[in-house]
Formats: sequence, C-alpha cells, structure tokens
Amino acid sequence: MVWRIDWRASLGVLGTVLTYLALTMLVPLAVAVVYMEDIWVFVVSILLVVILGFGLKRLDPEPDLGPQEALLLVALAWIAAPIVGTIPYLLAGFGTESTVGLQTSSLGAAVESFVNALFESTSGFTTTGATVLGEISLEQHSHAVMMWRQLTQWLGGMGIIVLMIAILPEVAVNGAELMRSEAPGPDLQKLTPKIAETARALWIIYFGFTVLLVAILYGLHLTGTVIDADLAPNMNLYNAVAHAFTTLPTGGFSPQADSIAAFSALVQWVIIPFMVVAGVNFALFWHVFRGEARVMLENTEFRTYAGLLAALFAVLAVLLFGGAVPKTDPGGVTEGVTENALRQAAFQIGSLLNSTGYATADFAQWAEGGTEAQLVLLFAMFIGGSAGSTGGGIKVIRWLVVFKAIRRELYTSAHPDVIEPVRLGGNVVDEDTIRGIMVFTMLYILLFGVAAVFIMLDSARIGVDLTVLEAMSASLATIGNIGPGFGDLGPFGNYLFFPESSKLLMTVLMWFGRLEIVPVLALFVAGLRDSGR
Amino acid sequence: MVWRIDWRASLGVLGTVLTYLALTMLVPLAVAVVYMEDIWVFVVSILLVVILGFGLKRLDPEPDLGPQEALLLVALAWIAAPIVGTIPYLLAGFGTESTVGLQTSSLGAAVESFVNALFESTSGFTTTGATVLGEISLEQHSHAVMMWRQLTQWLGGMGIIVLMIAILPEVAVNGAELMRSEAPGPDLQKLTPKIAETARALWIIYFGFTVLLVAILYGLHLTGTVIDADLAPNMNLYNAVAHAFTTLPTGGFSPQADSIAAFSALVQWVIIPFMVVAGVNFALFWHVFRGEARVMLENTEFRTYAGLLAALFAVLAVLLFGGAVPKTDPGGVTEGVTENALRQAAFQIGSLLNSTGYATADFAQWAEGGTEAQLVLLFAMFIGGSAGSTGGGIKVIRWLVVFKAIRRELYTSAHPDVIEPVRLGGNVVDEDTIRGIMVFTMLYILLFGVAAVFIMLDSARIGVDLTVLEAMSASLATIGNIGPGFGDLGPFGNYLFFPESSKLLMTVLMWFGRLEIVPVLALFVAGLRDSGR
Ligand SMILES: [K+]
Ligand SMILES: [K+]
Repeated sequence: MVWRIDWRASLGVLGTVLTYLALTMLVPLAVAVVYMEDIWVFVVSILLVVILGFGLKRLDPEPDLGPQEALLLVALAWIAAPIVGTIPYLLAGFGTESTVGLQTSSLGAAVESFVNALFESTSGFTTTGATVLGEISLEQHSHAVMMWRQLTQWLGGMGIIVLMIAILPEVAVNGAELMRSEAPGPDLQKLTPKIAETARALWIIYFGFTVLLVAILYGLHLTGTVIDADLAPNMNLYNAVAHAFTTLPTGGFSPQADSIAAFSALVQWVIIPFMVVAGVNFALFWHVFRGEARVMLENTEFRTYAGLLAALFAVLAVLLFGGAVPKTDPGGVTEGVTENALRQAAFQIGSLLNSTGYATADFAQWAEGGTEAQLVLLFAMFIGGSAGSTGGGIKVIRWLVVFKAIRRELYTSAHPDVIEPVRLGGNVVDEDTIRGIMVFTMLYILLFGVAAVFIMLDSARIGVDLTVLEAMSASLATIGNIGPGFGDLGPFGNYLFFPESSKLLMTVLMWFGRLEIVPVLALFVAGLRDSGR
Repeated sequence: MVWRIDWRASLGVLGTVLTYLALTMLVPLAVAVVYMEDIWVFVVSILLVVILGFGLKRLDPEPDLGPQEALLLVALAWIAAPIVGTIPYLLAGFGTESTVGLQTSSLGAAVESFVNALFESTSGFTTTGATVLGEISLEQHSHAVMMWRQLTQWLGGMGIIVLMIAILPEVAVNGAELMRSEAPGPDLQKLTPKIAETARALWIIYFGFTVLLVAILYGLHLTGTVIDADLAPNMNLYNAVAHAFTTLPTGGFSPQADSIAAFSALVQWVIIPFMVVAGVNFALFWHVFRGEARVMLENTEFRTYAGLLAALFAVLAVLLFGGAVPKTDPGGVTEGVTENALRQAAFQIGSLLNSTGYATADFAQWAEGGTEAQLVLLFAMFIGGSAGSTGGGIKVIRWLVVFKAIRRELYTSAHPDVIEPVRLGGNVVDEDTIRGIMVFTMLYILLFGVAAVFIMLDSARIGVDLTVLEAMSASLATIGNIGPGFGDLGPFGNYLFFPESSKLLMTVLMWFGRLEIVPVLALFVAGLRDSGR
C-alpha cells in the first residue's frame, strides 16, 4: 500500500484560502482609516498575502481534493494562517520596542520577534488567548493591529475551513471530511443533506450571535449616554466589536489591559450568557431556530455542560461569598457581597470551563487562602466546551464517553458473559468512536504532562524557576486553548518571560489543541510509516 | 438479571486464608524468642486471628467458589489481611508513645492509632513501603515487630491468594479467576495445565530468589568477618532476611532508618540486580529454568523493561557524574566520582522504576539544582514493573499497548479503510484487552489526579501546606505502591504528618493500586447496579 497524496491540490486550495484571509484584513484596514492610523501596515500585509495566495493557486488551478488531500489542506491552512497572521504584528512594531514587532538589531532579536509574533498569532487563530504582549494598551498598539488580533480569534473560532466550505463550492466537494478535521469535538452532525448548507448555517448562527452581542453592548453604551447613567461607560463601538469578536469564539483576547474588569458590572453580566452560548454545540441552535428546542433540551452533552456550569458556579459562589478568597485587584471584595460573589463566580466558571479565558478578577492572587477556589477553576479548565462549539479543551462529550466506557468496563469485568454497549442519549456509541475518544483523551493527558515537564526544565535552563503549578498551567492553558494559567501567567500576566523554545512548544500545543491532535498527527504518522514501505 | 453472590462461600474460604496468615506470625514469634523480646504480642495476635479464621470457616464448611465469589474473596482477603496485620502493631505499641501503638487516652487518639497502624499494615501487604513510623529503629521497635513489617511485604508481593492456590486444593478450583484478580498486570500466563502448579511454580521461584539473596548478603557478612574486611559489616542474619523479604516483593520497607544507605557499597551493588529481577515477569524465569532462556530474551515487555532501565540509568548517571545534584546526606558526592555516580544512578532507577522504593540517597534534597534528576525519577515512577512481577505502577506492558493503540489509531484515522490489529511480540492483542488496558490507564491517571487534589486540600485544612509536587507525589507513591515521594515525604521522610482523612484515602489508593482497581471496583459497580434492578 503506497500513500500517494496530491499535495499540489492541497496547496492550490490553500492559495484560495489565503486570498480570502487577505480580504479579512480589510477590517483592520478600515479601522486604521477611521482612527487615522498608518494604513501602510495592512496595505502591505494584504498585498503580500494576496501574492502568496495567487502563487499557490497556480500550482493547481483545478484542484481535486480526496480525503487525504482534505486532511492535508486543513493542516496546511492552520500552519499558514498563523504564519501569515504575524505579518501585521511584525510590520506594525517594526523598529519599535513592542514585544511583537520585528527587531532587526541582530539575528537573535529577529528570531525572538518572529517567535513572539507567531505565538500571538497562533494564540489568536486557535482562540487560546495567551499573550506575549508585555503591555496591552491602545496607546502602545494601534487600534487597527489590536482589532486584527481580535479578528484572528473570530476567524479561528468557527473555523477558516468551515467558512470556505460555506462560500466556495469547489472546497465543499470533500467538505464532510474537511469539517470533521477542523470542527472541535468528535461528533459532526450534518444538519442538511448538503455539507455547504450545514457550514453556512453554522456560520450564520455564529455571525448572528456576534452581531447581537455588539448590538447589546453598544446599545447599553448609547442608552447610558442618552439617559445619563453609567450603564457601560467604556463600551464604545470599537470595544463592543472587539469583545464580540473574542467572546463567541471562546477566545479571550481583549484590547484592554484589565480585560473585562475594565467594564461595568452590567457589561460583565451581559457577556456571561454569551460565553456560555459559545461553549454549546452550534448545531443545537439551528434546531432551536427551527422550533425544535426539544432537541437542545434533550441533548445529553448540553445537559451535562449546563449541569457542570451550574454546579461549579454554585461551589465557587459559596466559596467567594464565604470569604475563601482575599480582596483582589481588580475584582474587589466578594466576601459577604452577594452581587459581586455571584458575578465573579459566574464569570470565572463561564470563562474557564469552556476555555474563553476572559478575566474580571485576578485568581492568580488567590493563592493565599484561596487554594480551594483555585482548584475549582483548575478542575473547570480540564472540562472544555461541547463538540461543535468553539470551545477548547477535552470537551464534555469526550468525558461523558470516557466515564461511560469506564463504567461499562467495570460492569462487564464482573459479568464477563454480558455484552453491553455504551449509550449516549439513547443511542449506541459505536466501538470505533469509543476507541478514538479513549485514545484522544489519553494522548491529550500524556502530551499535557510531558509538555509541562519540558516547560519546567526549559525555563529553569534560563533561570526562570517555575512552580509545578505554573508549569502545569502553562501546558494546560495552551493545549486546551484556554489562555490564562496560574501564577505569573495568570489572567493579568503574560507569556513573554518564557524561553523561545518553550514558546515554540506552546505554539505547537495550541495548534494540536485546536485541531484536536489526532487528524494532524495522523497525517505525519501515516506519512512516515508509508514512506518506509 | 439478578446478581446472586454466595458471600458465605467467600467468607468461608477467607477463614482458611486467615488461619494460614496466623501461621505466618510464627516467624516474628520466633524472632521474639531469639532476641528474648516479649512473646505475648505475637501469641495473642495468633490466637485472635485463629479464632477469627475458625469463626468465618464455620459460615460455610464446604465453600464452593464461582467466578463472582472468587472476585469477592480476593477483595475480602485484601481488606482482612491489612486489618488483621494491624494487631501486632497495636499490641506492641500499647500504651507507648510509638506512632503506631494503640493509644487509649481518648477516642480520638485510639482512632488515630488505628488509622496509623492500618496505613502501615496496608503499605506492607500492598508492597508500597510508605511509612508512618516517626522513628525507624530497633531500639524503638522490637526485632519481632519490625520483622512482621518486613514479612507483610513478602506475603503481599507474590500474593496471599496465589499462595493459597498453591497449597490448598479447594481454593484452586476457581484458581484462574482468582489469580487473574490478584496478579499484577493484565496478562496471566498459565505455565502448566493445572493452575495450582502454576501458582506453586511462581512461589517457588519467588522463594528461591529470596533465599539466594539472604545467602549472598549473609555470606558477604560472614566472609568479611573471616577475612577481616569490611565487606558487609552491618548485614547480620536478621538484616539479610529482613531486606530479602522486602527486595523481591518490590516492597522497600527497611528496619534501618537509613534504608540501604546503612550498608556498604558492595551490599548496594548486590541488591540492585535483585530489585531488577523483582520487576520481571516471574513466569519468564520459569522458562529460563527449563532451559528456554530464548523466551525471556524475545519477550517484548522484558526487552522494553530492560531498555527503559538502561536508558534512564544512563541519563541519571551522566547527570549525577556531571554534578547536577548537590552532595547529599546520605549518598555523598557523586560529581566526578565514577563508582558513586554509577551506583546511585543504578540504585535509584532500579528502586523507583519498578516501585521498590529503597533509598541510598535523599533525592528530596536534590531540589536545588537537581530538578532534571528529580524529573528523571518522577518519569521512572510512572512506569512500573512488568505484568506477573511483584512491581507496582501502571506496568510496562500497559504502556506498550497504550502507545501501540495510539499509533494504530493515528494510522487508521488517516487510512479509514484499513483495519489494523495491535501486535505485541508478533501476536495480535485482542480488542477487548486493549479496551480494558485503555480504561485501566485512564482510570489510574484520573484517580491519581483527583487524589492529589484531595490530599492537597485536606492537608491545607489542618494547616499543612503541601507543594503541588508533594501532593502529586503522595498520590503517585501510594496508588503506584512505590513508597517515597518528594519533599517532606521523601525517601527519609514519612507520612505521619498527613491528616487522618488523607491517610485513609492513601490506604484505599494503595489497595486499589495493588489490586489494580478494575476487578475491585467492578465488584461494587456491579453490585450497585444490580441491586437497582
Ligand atoms: K478557546
Ligand atoms: K511495589
């Protein structure tokens, strides 16, 4: 058996993907125009990407994607997008002291600049939200570049490839295969007979929620101005769009140094339900909008997700109200303050369980006396969103299958004569799926552990002594596409201080986490083994 | 389907098991006579256990074990043996300040005494080697009690039930079922058509290695006395027997506070190969003694085990020789001292990889500058011994199957049309076995993680602030039946300072680790579910 892959076809379609990616850069270009900032950064970026795209397209003008080529395309697109995404960062910071701008003083400085930019860009497209920006502010960085940073998360959330399937008929041919590789979670539901329509439905829902959030946030701001009340004083249109761009994809980037703590309590309450929505399988909303709310309410994964959110929220709210956690800055006093305790608890759980990573309080400061509360958050970070949502992590459905498989194994090992299938919501889960999920979860946990050890040793090498918790959280926050960790890489910290080698590893982890490891690794393992035959 | 279990039959056989356990107490009784110590401790212990045993036997004078009853018997025997094993500890320390003696000053003190004694006894039978003895010395504790402590490990190593199958025809009827539940690892090889003969062969090999080690150790001591050289000055007959009793079962208890560091370098070199032997599948030795050494050399698990030992030894030896680790007490200087660097490296890897837990150097002191070396040890602790050895942990063969299953999954997800079995040493591993191993490994890792969090929170509750590494190592060292952890519970520390609740949890972890979780939990899950039908 020889593995013949038509890589020209994959590269040809990749060219098309990149030209469309260049088009999305019109958004930050428009922002630059509005704020009267330098427009050359995005003009040059667009030109470079378009040239690259057209060049690749010429490799195969009429690409024909088989299943292997589809897989390769997804892997390539997710390598190319973060690399191309670094261009605006490098150009914008050219010659400045910005931590992601291109330094040309020495080769080492240039490499460091590229690694930082690649980290930031990958963190964007994979919706991770971990940052190497030493200073987050609209004075230090232009509105346009900061909007590009937000936009990468919005593009990566529902998936670049899913968007292509929705709009390009030639990509839709092997669309099911493509979507299976890009969509988070093991479960792909075809909503309509045509995969392009499914992709379109998902993107429309995603777009709709984004617009709704912008409307509510900016609406509050305008209303506040009109009735002269502090409803959402800082939430201008720029901020409304920027935060909608990173809420729905469970992204977590913010152009504000204080993240969501920069906004009023009302804004925080508004964002909570949208974060929750971002972790739900978007296919379920499609059913709801067709009048089949029953499908959502009866969905096992949705019920588990909702139940976990509610339970962890309750535990954390009690801990916060009871004074387990000292007053933090920002965040303030939660002990005995009902509204703040409830809001902080709902926000943290909503933000960390499905991997958004927004912050309203610095849980890195909770170490003294707040160990229980921190461990509740750590537990939440291991769960992840739902399949078909934009959330990262291991995902609720995988945990469900893992626990049901464990329970089945225990039962049948006491009753060796009994054959029992694993059921989920009344349906039998087939054994190949169970096996795939067990392997994925195991691989995820092993990678997480090995990476934590590597990061710890690598940091010690350059004299940065991490605690075991910090090293573990760096690994978990990147492979899980979460963003903030504990300690120095907490919600108001950053990843700048890590050595380049660790940053590169974390870039790979974010990438594995977003593409869910197996399809991507599969390509290499299959390639390696076949080349040896 | 109703689950009807004949628990009287299981209890009846348990009675027989206990009377034989009482007989083994003749060993410490003899030691008490030789050293002219109080003999009443073991006389009373024997009487109590014999009475209990005969009482249970009367429940079912002619027990008939089915597969369910066999499973229940294993679980019960492994609950009863550690409980009964506390009697000598409680009696010997009665009224004294010993940390495992029975305190009667208050109910709380009595409970604490029992929890400590149960921890020590379970740590013995499960071959863990974690201790709550605040002071290990033959002045503080009698020679007889310390020999009982060593003996529990020897009995638990090859298995109480395997011993019963070897000597009692009525137990051998469902012997295959019993052995599968008690033998470490997923793989049970029937060496002979009769299971009783297999059990006998395993125990004879185990006994043989033990006697050989006693002979070599005591032989060195005697030779040293005769030729007036310091070959093994402290290795008198008592110490030779005591350490042989805990080397072959990968136990790690020592009556010396300094563990193996109390003995000469020559003694340390002698013990290393025996520790290595203890982690090998004993069935392979049976083949070697029949002249089929080829079977051992071609065994995939054996080759992997040997390869891992060699590789980790080499890495650690280089680190130690290169000065990665400061001078420790005991252990001494390894930097640039070839013999010491080689010996320490071989000893630590031999001791920790297969879960023995003996110490010759205090790796808890390595924190400063020795992080790499500590992480090599941590990595080794995750491996475990071979199936059919006395070693703990996840076991080499499971890791082999897990990695092969991951590789297979990656390959087939790029080639969905290909059906590929997992092969081990040329044989196809059947899918049920793979599933069982995946579930086991997952459950193990999850339990390890959850227990670490519990231990951390529980200790914080009583004001003991563990580091994450200490909490994780407490969980790993007990569920993996290893013994020493990092930090305060390092090789020369102890587990006395943990709260009672954590000690009880660790007792359960040791028990799960030794019985490999699945068969035992299976019993409860099956019972719970069936009772609901
Ligand atoms: K995310
Ligand atoms: K052991």
